[in-house]
Amino acid sequence: MAQRNIRLTLSYDGTDFAGWQVQPNRRTVQGVVEHAILKTSGESLRILAAGRTDSGVHALGQVANFRTESDIPADRWKLALRAHLPDEVVVVESEEVDYEFHATFSAKTKRYRYVIYNHVVEFPFLKNYAWRIPQELDVAAMHAAAQELVGKHDFRSFESHWPNKATSIRTVNQVSVNRVAEWPAWSPVATAGERVDGESTPTAPFIVLEIEADGFLYNMVRTITGTLLNVGRGNWTGKDVRRILEAMNRKEAGGTAPAHGLYLVCVHYG
Amino acid sequence: MAQRNIRLTLSYDGTDFAGWQVQPNRRTVQGVVEHAILKTSGESLRILAAGRTDSGVHALGQVANFRTESDIPADRWKLALRAHLPDEVVVVESEEVDYEFHATFSAKTKRYRYVIYNHVVEFPFLKNYAWRIPQELDVAAMHAAAQELVGKHDFRSFESHWPNKATSIRTVNQVSVNRVAEWPAWSPVATAGERVDGESTPTAPFIVLEIEADGFLYNMVRTITGTLLNVGRGNWTGKDVRRILEAMNRKEAGGTAPAHGLYLVCVHYG
Repeated sequence: MAQRNIRLTLSYDGTDFAGWQVQPNRRTVQGVVEHAILKTSGESLRILAAGRTDSGVHALGQVANFRTESDIPADRWKLALRAHLPDEVVVVESEEVDYEFHATFSAKTKRYRYVIYNHVVEFPFLKNYAWRIPQELDVAAMHAAAQELVGKHDFRSFESHWPNKATSIRTVNQVSVNRVAEWPAWSPVATAGERVDGESTPTAPFIVLEIEADGFLYNMVRTITGTLLNVGRGNWTGKDVRRILEAMNRKEAGGTAPAHGLYLVCVHYG
Repeated sequence: MAQRNIRLTLSYDGTDFAGWQVQPNRRTVQGVVEHAILKTSGESLRILAAGRTDSGVHALGQVANFRTESDIPADRWKLALRAHLPDEVVVVESEEVDYEFHATFSAKTKRYRYVIYNHVVEFPFLKNYAWRIPQELDVAAMHAAAQELVGKHDFRSFESHWPNKATSIRTVNQVSVNRVAEWPAWSPVATAGERVDGESTPTAPFIVLEIEADGFLYNMVRTITGTLLNVGRGNWTGKDVRRILEAMNRKEAGGTAPAHGLYLVCVHYG
């Protein structure tokens, strides 16, 4: 029987997973999806993903693919897999694609988001979903400095454990840092906030970094976030970001922001 | 040394706790707060709470109190305890109150919130924080029918394991059911949503039930939610809610909504 190539768009909460990639004796996203495929079609196969997210990293539009001999219609895979997946992994879409399509190598660009919760008061429901920075940050300065990253550069200053890849040159198409105004609407934070006497309540407690590039080095978004944090605190400016880029030395950049604020937003295949 | 009575306002994510109340060999909110007090002042003591939330139930403004011989200033307890608490339990406020103040018995009213995620597509980040109902519900009908609950009634139809208490008469001061428009701002749901072809996207996917009363029976809010769900689906109306109230029989009411959508919002002491 001819094999068909199925592309999945996946959203998942990475909190309780040891990342995307299958590892012995660890619960991974790849592992639970492959298990769901086994339960659905009886096929024991490997799936490929656009980005191998680390432990604790989330995804809203991860893309994966696999080749199947099953005659399950492409759009039925979404519902079929749902029945065998845990609640925190959702198949948003399933579709048939060209046999040559490869989730990793066909990707033209990927977009990541990093969420900072910029508030003096802890919010317990965000502990796995945003990085809390209590001091108010200068978001306009962070956005301006981040523009130094746009374009084709050697990003080895922003890579952990360099060299991992043949080249550390990547092209950043777009990067932005913005305050986001609303609290999660379903949470009664406003009510809880009323009881916080004498502590200032910024009107826009979330800071969202968005970055799109043709590829990312290991920990690149988290290191960029840690570097821009120093800008937001007033210690560095765009000149420092440029200096760090040109140094091609990881020690020059800021710290690595924690995994739980990072989201793989989407992947574009052109 | 004279004992002082300290009141704490607590916010917590109930996901990884076996509820508020201390139990042998279980991780409970009361247990971790009492442990933090032990670490702070060396005192091994019991704390009292306004509402003993069940496993998985969250709080935004739980109130507890304890009597201490320590000379730590009341407002310093907040920071001192933070150092010994897990991330998902936050002391929002600490203050000294009259020696007679009792978090349970001094409470005049409590307010609970129940959050329904009313959307056809699963959202993995909400699995512990809202109850997903895929079919679109008639929120105006739910709100109207809920008004039958306002006032002083015998609520035993809405109590699990009746009789637990001396009386099942309670006074509901206010109840509302509303759609809430915004997505959690920090989440890129809109982006993920773009990829959901052919599935309708309600503009206001969250339904929030708010209820304030002088007290609540066991599982009362969750049973009211399960009952109003039948209204939202068009099976029942306000007349049925009145009939259920008057029947004084748990079997007449709807199902018990799951714990993870429930939040103790605040407690009023008059």
